Amino acid sequence: MPALEKINDQRLFGGRQMRFEHDSKTLQCRMQFSVYLPPLATQQDVPALYWLSGLTCTDENFSAKAGAQRLAAELGIALVIPDTSPRGDKVPDDPEGAYDFGLGAGFYVNATEAPFATHYQMYDYISKELPALVEAELPLSTHKAISGHSMGGHGALVMALRETGSYTSVSAFSPISNPINCPWGRKALTGYLGEDESHWQLYDASVLLAQHKTTLPILVDQGDADQFLAEQLKPEALQAASEASGSAIKLRIQPGYDHSYYFIASFIEDHLRFHARYLLPQS
Amino acid sequence: MPALEKINDQRLFGGRQMRFEHDSKTLQCRMQFSVYLPPLATQQDVPALYWLSGLTCTDENFSAKAGAQRLAAELGIALVIPDTSPRGDKVPDDPEGAYDFGLGAGFYVNATEAPFATHYQMYDYISKELPALVEAELPLSTHKAISGHSMGGHGALVMALRETGSYTSVSAFSPISNPINCPWGRKALTGYLGEDESHWQLYDASVLLAQHKTTLPILVDQGDADQFLAEQLKPEALQAASEASGSAIKLRIQPGYDHSYYFIASFIEDHLRFHARYLLPQS
Repeated sequence: MPALEKINDQRLFGGRQMRFEHDSKTLQCRMQFSVYLPPLATQQDVPALYWLSGLTCTDENFSAKAGAQRLAAELGIALVIPDTSPRGDKVPDDPEGAYDFGLGAGFYVNATEAPFATHYQMYDYISKELPALVEAELPLSTHKAISGHSMGGHGALVMALRETGSYTSVSAFSPISNPINCPWGRKALTGYLGEDESHWQLYDASVLLAQHKTTLPILVDQGDADQFLAEQLKPEALQAASEASGSAIKLRIQPGYDHSYYFIASFIEDHLRFHARYLLPQS
Repeated sequence: MPALEKINDQRLFGGRQMRFEHDSKTLQCRMQFSVYLPPLATQQDVPALYWLSGLTCTDENFSAKAGAQRLAAELGIALVIPDTSPRGDKVPDDPEGAYDFGLGAGFYVNATEAPFATHYQMYDYISKELPALVEAELPLSTHKAISGHSMGGHGALVMALRETGSYTSVSAFSPISNPINCPWGRKALTGYLGEDESHWQLYDASVLLAQHKTTLPILVDQGDADQFLAEQLKPEALQAASEASGSAIKLRIQPGYDHSYYFIASFIEDHLRFHARYLLPQS
């Protein structure tokens, strides 16, 4: 069986919006993900922006709603859009079927607690297995940037801060900036990593950013009408962390915007142009 | 009770993506629709592009997936996005619950057959009641253009060809161009208008266009990888009709594109710029 089974391929802005299925060794289940290839990919390998989605999403939400492919086509950047958790009947879900843990809510960690540890290895899946796979099978260079929304903004920041040299730049929309100090994060980290909070530190962007000065380009957008802002997102922790370590981040508070894909659509062009500065050779 | 009940209001590209509910006299039921107001609408009345959606859609598909608001914001054009049929428990559906008749499939006609005639008056709703309502209640001028997809492309072409002077321009993506000669159209027209095919002519864009020379600006985009192209859409009938009456239409066959919203997203900018030429004062 081929490594990648193509399950969809649609023309979009002169390029191709594709969907693949594959057996993930890391997650021990069948996974789906989407890729947008810009027109330039018919001639040469192109760099990729990885997009990590938020709670309840699959790869299809960003693909259909963000409008990112228009500028990705123009800039010659691929989009790689993974799912948000392992999937399938064998994969354990939240015992009460809650939206914020289990299926659709992998939180981009490597779980250590039973029964989740077997499949919930999203950190390794997205930072290691998936890039190796798509770079081998698709016309992608090894140049990568990463972005995401909410839970995915958390995942993008954590991966970029920990995997030094892997990503040229990172950005986030409405990220869960300090998961060890918010209800969504505390529930997920307890469930996947156990009660010992010392194990949670590696998955908190504000902790990581406070510990080490970084020169990584970081852009964060946050709407001030976001219903989750005060309780769950806490961008002020990220700002304080950057000041603590002397790292530069660009944090923008966008007046009137909420937590939805309409917010992402409004500013995705800025994020793509930001990543293009580091992903593409400058003329 | 106010004429319009606002049920959603979200910031998008500096403007507002809004959703309303109201009691429709024409349809004798409660209806929902969406409106995008560009930033300019805070200062002055703006013209509007009406968007008619295809089978199975509501006002939410185009709102979320087409990416039209970006350029609408820049150009200062509102988007008015109605539903595709009357709604509610009182409204009769296809007896077998088929996707191509009844709820979600009003075909933009004024039905004459029982039990549909009571509620299925979508032609009058969209060409008369809805514009009067939104022009009275929202910062919209009386300048209107109209566009749509598939069943909505059919609706847009028919309304623009019949309501002379109401719309400055019309465009369509993958329209059902000759409904009296395709399975979707024949089923709908039989069900809503009865067996007498002479009553169907008023709802067939190719018949209308062949009968009368028009100077209305008309743009049609059609993907050549559209699975419904040969059996249901028949853009060649529209081309032949335009030649028969000596009317100019711009029909573009787009290689590789299918029937999905990815096709619409890829070319919606062209359509907005096309309508802007007629909707906006030229500098």
